[in-house]
Order: sequence, then structure tokens, then C-alpha cells
Amino acid sequence: MTTSDEAPFVRVCELSKHADRSVTVKGWVYHLRAKGKLVFLVLRDGSGLVQCVGVKGEMDDAQFDEIQRLPMESSIEVRGKVRLDARAPGGAEVGISFVTVLQKADADFPIQPKEHGTGFLMENRHLWLRSRKPWACLRIRDRAIRSIREYFHELGFINIDSPIFTPAACEGTSTLFEVDYFDDKAYLTQSGQLYAEAAAMAFGKVFTFGPTFRAEKSKTRRHLTEFWMVEPEVAFATLDDVMSLAEGLLCRVVGDALTDCKEELKVLERDVTKLECIRAPFPRLSYDEAAKYLQSKGLPFEYGNDFGAPDETAIGEKYDRPVMIHRYPHQVKAFYMKRDPQDPRWALCVDVIAPEGYGEVIGGSQREENLAVLRSRIEEHKLPMDAFQWYLDLRRFGSVPHSGFGMGLERCVAWICGVDHLRECIPFPRMLHKIYP
Amino acid sequence: MTTSDEAPFVRVCELSKHADRSVTVKGWVYHLRAKGKLVFLVLRDGSGLVQCVGVKGEMDDAQFDEIQRLPMESSIEVRGKVRLDARAPGGAEVGISFVTVLQKADADFPIQPKEHGTGFLMENRHLWLRSRKPWACLRIRDRAIRSIREYFHELGFINIDSPIFTPAACEGTSTLFEVDYFDDKAYLTQSGQLYAEAAAMAFGKVFTFGPTFRAEKSKTRRHLTEFWMVEPEVAFATLDDVMSLAEGLLCRVVGDALTDCKEELKVLERDVTKLECIRAPFPRLSYDEAAKYLQSKGLPFEYGNDFGAPDETAIGEKYDRPVMIHRYPHQVKAFYMKRDPQDPRWALCVDVIAPEGYGEVIGGSQREENLAVLRSRIEEHKLPMDAFQWYLDLRRFGSVPHSGFGMGLERCVAWICGVDHLRECIPFPRMLHKIYP
Repeated sequence: MTTSDEAPFVRVCELSKHADRSVTVKGWVYHLRAKGKLVFLVLRDGSGLVQCVGVKGEMDDAQFDEIQRLPMESSIEVRGKVRLDARAPGGAEVGISFVTVLQKADADFPIQPKEHGTGFLMENRHLWLRSRKPWACLRIRDRAIRSIREYFHELGFINIDSPIFTPAACEGTSTLFEVDYFDDKAYLTQSGQLYAEAAAMAFGKVFTFGPTFRAEKSKTRRHLTEFWMVEPEVAFATLDDVMSLAEGLLCRVVGDALTDCKEELKVLERDVTKLECIRAPFPRLSYDEAAKYLQSKGLPFEYGNDFGAPDETAIGEKYDRPVMIHRYPHQVKAFYMKRDPQDPRWALCVDVIAPEGYGEVIGGSQREENLAVLRSRIEEHKLPMDAFQWYLDLRRFGSVPHSGFGMGLERCVAWICGVDHLRECIPFPRMLHKIYP
Repeated sequence: MTTSDEAPFVRVCELSKHADRSVTVKGWVYHLRAKGKLVFLVLRDGSGLVQCVGVKGEMDDAQFDEIQRLPMESSIEVRGKVRLDARAPGGAEVGISFVTVLQKADADFPIQPKEHGTGFLMENRHLWLRSRKPWACLRIRDRAIRSIREYFHELGFINIDSPIFTPAACEGTSTLFEVDYFDDKAYLTQSGQLYAEAAAMAFGKVFTFGPTFRAEKSKTRRHLTEFWMVEPEVAFATLDDVMSLAEGLLCRVVGDALTDCKEELKVLERDVTKLECIRAPFPRLSYDEAAKYLQSKGLPFEYGNDFGAPDETAIGEKYDRPVMIHRYPHQVKAFYMKRDPQDPRWALCVDVIAPEGYGEVIGGSQREENLAVLRSRIEEHKLPMDAFQWYLDLRRFGSVPHSGFGMGLERCVAWICGVDHLRECIPFPRMLHKIYP
């Protein structure tokens, strides 16, 4: 069977526009149920699901028998008439007139309609992607990527990709992946920030958005060795400016998902009322206030330390929207952060903690713009001064106040989707001892 | 000086909307010229250039003297009134009333208004980005990234990121970068295609768009070790379908650059009449026809071989728009390509050759969907069957005809910009022995 003018090839998500017309749909058998003279075949084509109904006597007898015996995930083309039906998923079903089997799938499709362990599902990630939950998570991820890019573009940002191969570590070498780079060594980037700073001096407002790498030996639900990060950097911006920028970004990404990913959120059984609360303004707390809150709750938190995951959860639980914690003790933060001129104990930085225990999704700061100060910070942190010569140049030639942040894409998507583990929010997750498929 | 309501902070690209109003612009000294009681200061803020004019007597005397001595790239804030002037770049200039110097740059800014060697400029890439040509190239790159994403999104594609760490080589190991992956070895991806194929079976239409890596020891203007590639993959699509998809993509990217990057193309002195020719339909030649043409021209080309860069240039020169060469001898192409059922000497593949000697910008094919055939191809190519088990699964469980292609972002941008070397079309190029800055 080939697609004909009388029965044009239509994607499932477009079927309701073709009421009472003959169409061809192409996809995979997702579910089958036979009942006397009827066969109900749910077809999956990647854009959605549609029920196709075969009636004995209204189609070829041999075909009627054949489709009943098709293994799950067999690929087929179905020709038939579209009937609008408000009860059907997508609002339409197809009355089968003709079926062509492209490939009868092997009968042992590993993923069956029963409980499987996540380890097993991840070994079969290439096939698991076809299931409803991964489909929904990764479509929300796609929508988030678009929202992020649209948001920055509308504000006049230029996308500048930072390099993946870097000559030196930005914040210590213990979690770096090393690569044989011809006769040399290179490291995979952990952050594009320093490069984004150089680009901000050339383009004013930039963002990098690409994969970043961390060779962390921890096997928790919060860790991936390879994850995507968006990092805006803005010349002439203060910490307050980028806190507002971060607030706007999260509102945009969540808002677009609510508008455009209704079906996906339903598949994930996400409580969307939690997401509907995500509106500016977000509460803003200083580290000092947040730390005192934790102590007042009797939590085993030591003042002066960075917050751990349980601390973030405890603070996050207080609010129905992300909370922005600013001005941490400079000792627990990176060398490049500017200290608060009002009180140099604090770094001019912010962590944005998502609600519902999803932890930090954004970390940012105002950058130190003074050459002499920055140099002494690099010394204090015992970092290799040579590797930072180009970075110091940015303070020699037209240094300006500037600020930026990084948002982990998968952390943000996990929160929106309401899934526990980051690995479900990236198509082919990479973790400790896990690079297949 | 702080920005005030009376003189709001305005980006240079927005100045013409603020005619006859007082504004604050913030940026870097790009050019300075003093002439008696006048000083002409061209300010660069990343969004554009604007001439700011200081008149002795109309501003503070000390400031008037100070700005004349500012080294290039010093960072400043200028308050003044916007005057529309059709002769000025951007259509406006600023009459200076007040200047604050944020940082007086060191006097030895490496990039001076004279000829520098590319090696030197690349050593100073973090500063060279501020010059007009890199600014223009990378803004066109940003526009191209958006056009690509918009094009695929409007057609219903889902962005699925393929992994960077891969367990095995897709097409031989000689040009792979190896990474110590905990106690194991991993390789940096050369193409996301195989993963995109898995995703196409789950989402129907997908694209991957990320960095890819090739450890090529060649030091030519066409090679980068790290470059960005977009790879669409479409279930149920034939070679003809993706040839049309590729044609539409190139028309879109070039058309958007012509519309939205007029200033950038002018900075690059690009002959835009060459780009205005880029419209569908593109000429489509079989390998057989192209090869015979080369032979008829007396070129030293051996029938049956792949085309080299001089061959591509010779074919490309015949046309005013990209030429699509399809159906190459299967021996010179990858194992996963389907052979033409009409004549199995040929692989169902296409290379798109840009005009003006820019060479191959797109390569694609219909993929072999038959399990037994694909298995024998893997054997013929002596590839490790084990590593392809998950890929073979795609042919076991609902195999369908499908096709896709890859477009090298920097190759496409180099052509649009009319620059010779790919390294100018990526913010921080990585080449043999080149990973700094």
C-alpha cells in the first residue's frame, strides 16, 4: 500500500483536523484488544496515540485475522476514515479499511505492560523511549529547551557556545574527565562560564547552552556525568539583575510547559496545581536568614557551611515557589565571585532552590571585576595562575561589573515533570559505570 | 554616576527609539578622534556601535580632557541626548553630557587597527571576539542556530540530545577521542545519528544538535576537532523526503540571515547577491552524472571513488545554488545506508555541496531497515557486532523505512559569512595542538 491522494499520510496529532476523511496513519502497535467481530488497535506514531477500530466484514478477512496476532511494537500502515470522538485520546479514532504490516516485531519486546526495575529499563533505554513516561518527560524537555532559548533571544541575548575541550580546571581537578588530546591532555568542560564572560564583553548579553561533564563517583538520583546547562552572562548586570533574570526564566519555562504540555503532564500524573503557583516574585532570603531558620527548626546544620540537600529541602518546603538564597559565606563559594562591598564576609551569589524537594536548579553570582583582587583569589584558591591569563585579560581591558548564572536543564525538567531521578530527563543518561546504550 | 529615570540605560541597538531623549549607554571605547573643541568617541556595547560626540564647553572640562586620553577598550558609561542621524551607523548618535570611566584599560590591548596573523588573533580569541568580523560571524551563527531550531520545530520535530560519551565507534576508531571513564574507556561522539534513529522510532521526527568530535590530525581550513552538528531523523521518510527537508533547511537558514543579519553581512563584505540565489529547487544529480561531468572536464577523478574537495568545488561551480548529489557507490559510504532497490550498486544517500567552493555542508541517507541485511553490513565493515546490539533491536521491533542527515553548523555558517576558515565560525575553536584560550 502506498499513500494516495485519497488517503493522505497524516500524523496522529493532526487527525482531528481530518474529520470524516480517509487518511493513512503510520506507526507501531501499542495495544491490541479483540472482541468478537471487533479489533481495537491502539497505534503509536510518536506524535500521539490513536485507536483504530477494525470490524469483521468491513475489511479483508485475512487482514482482520492477521492484525489480531501482531506482536506489540509491530510497524504498520493503516488506511481508514477519521471519526471525531470526544472520548478518544486526541479526540479522534480511525475506522480501519486497509492495513499493511511493515514489520512483524519479534515477540519478545523487552518492555511489557508490567513493573520493570529501572536498571533493566535503562539497559533498554533505546526501546523504553517508546513508553508513555519517557515520551512525556522528553517532550517536556524539548519544550523547556525552546522556552529557554526563546526567553533569552527575546531579551537580546546571543547564543555563544563555549568549548568542550578546556586546558585547565575551573574549580579543581578531582571531578574532571581527562582526554588524550594528541600529545597533550585536555579536560571536558564543567562550566562554560569563564568563556561566557569573555563573550559578554564582546556581545553584551550571551548564553552558552551545551553539555557539561562531572566525573563524580556518586551514584545518587541527583547525579549524571553528562548533563546540559544553560549559562547566561550579562555585562553591566548586578546580582539583583540576574536574580530577576533567573526568576523570569523559571516562570517562563514552567508557564510554557503548563500551556503546551498538558497531555504530557497528565501522562506523568503531575500535580499541576503545584506548578501553577510558580509566579514572580520568588521569596528572597539571605544565607544568614536561611541558616537561622534551619537552626530555629533544630536541624543539624552548622552555620558557615554550605547547604546540603536536606537543608535545601527544608528551606524549599516553606514556600510554594522557588526560593532565592543570596549572599553565602565566601569560603564555600567559587573564587570568581565578587564579595559584597557592604559586608565582605558574603559572596554576591544566589542559589535558586526549587520547591517540593527538587533542590538547587540555578546557581549564579556577580563576578569579581577587579584585576588585583581576582589575582589574589586565584592564589588563595591555589589555582594555576598561568591557565587564567586570558581570563585576567578581561579585567585588564575594559573590566565592567557583570553577572550570570547556570541552570541545570535536567534538574529543571525533573522538577517540572515531578520525577525523582535526573536520568529520566535526558534521552541517554550517562552515570557511573553506565554508558550503554 | 548611576542610571537615572531621566537617563535610562539603553542598548545601542535600541537608540533610534529614543530620539531627542537623554539616555545612558554603557560600553567600551572602540575608536577615538579629537578635533579642536570636539571629541568623537565610538562606543561598542555588543549590540552595535554608536558615535558619541563631546563638545568642549558643553561638558565638564576635566572629563573632556580625560576621555581623549582613554586607551582603546576602556569601559565607560556615557550620559547624553540621542540625535537621529541617517548618516550615523544605527541611525543615531549621542551628544555627551557626562562620562564615567569604569576602568581605564591597559594601554597594550593586543589587537590594534592593523593586520595581524590569524595565529596571533586566535591566541587572543577572548579579546578578538570584540572585533567587527568575529562579532558579525558569531551573530550570524546565533541566527543560524535559531533558524535551524525554528525550522524543525515548525515541522513537528522534537529535539533529542544524543549522548557525548559513547561506548563504541560508529565508523572506525582512528579519529576518536578516548576518555578515561572511571575504570573503563569511553569515546566522544562523532555523530548522534544512531541514537537519533532510536528516538525517531519513539517520537517520529527528531533532531539532535550538539557538539561532535573528530581527532583528525589534519590542519586544514576545513577541520575542527570539535564542531556542532544538527542531525534530523525521520521515521517513514525516504531519501527523497530528506532531500527536500535539507533543501528547505538551507533556504530557511540563508533567507533568515539575509533578512535579519544585514549589518553583519555588510561588515563581512559578503556578496549577498550570491546568497539571494539560494532558492528551491536545488539541482539534483546522481553520482553517476556528477562523475561523468568531472571526467568530461578532464579532471583527474577516478570513477567509483568518493569526491574530494577539488571535485566538489568543480561540481559546485556549475550552479548558483547548492547541488544535491545522490546515490554514491555503496563502497565509499557508511554501513548503515540502504542500497537502491533499483540498482544495488548505489547507496541511497545524498551529499549537499554548497556553491562558491564551500564544499559539503550536508550528508544524509535512507537507512537500512532490514535486520539480516544490516547485520551482514556490520560484518562486511568488520565492526564490533556486540556494540550494535541495541541498534539492531530497532530492526527487530517495528522496523520502518527511515532517513536523516547531518549538517555541520560551522560549515554552513562559513559559507553564509563567506569566510575561508571554519575556525572563524565557532567562538573558541579547537584544532590540532590548539585548546587555548
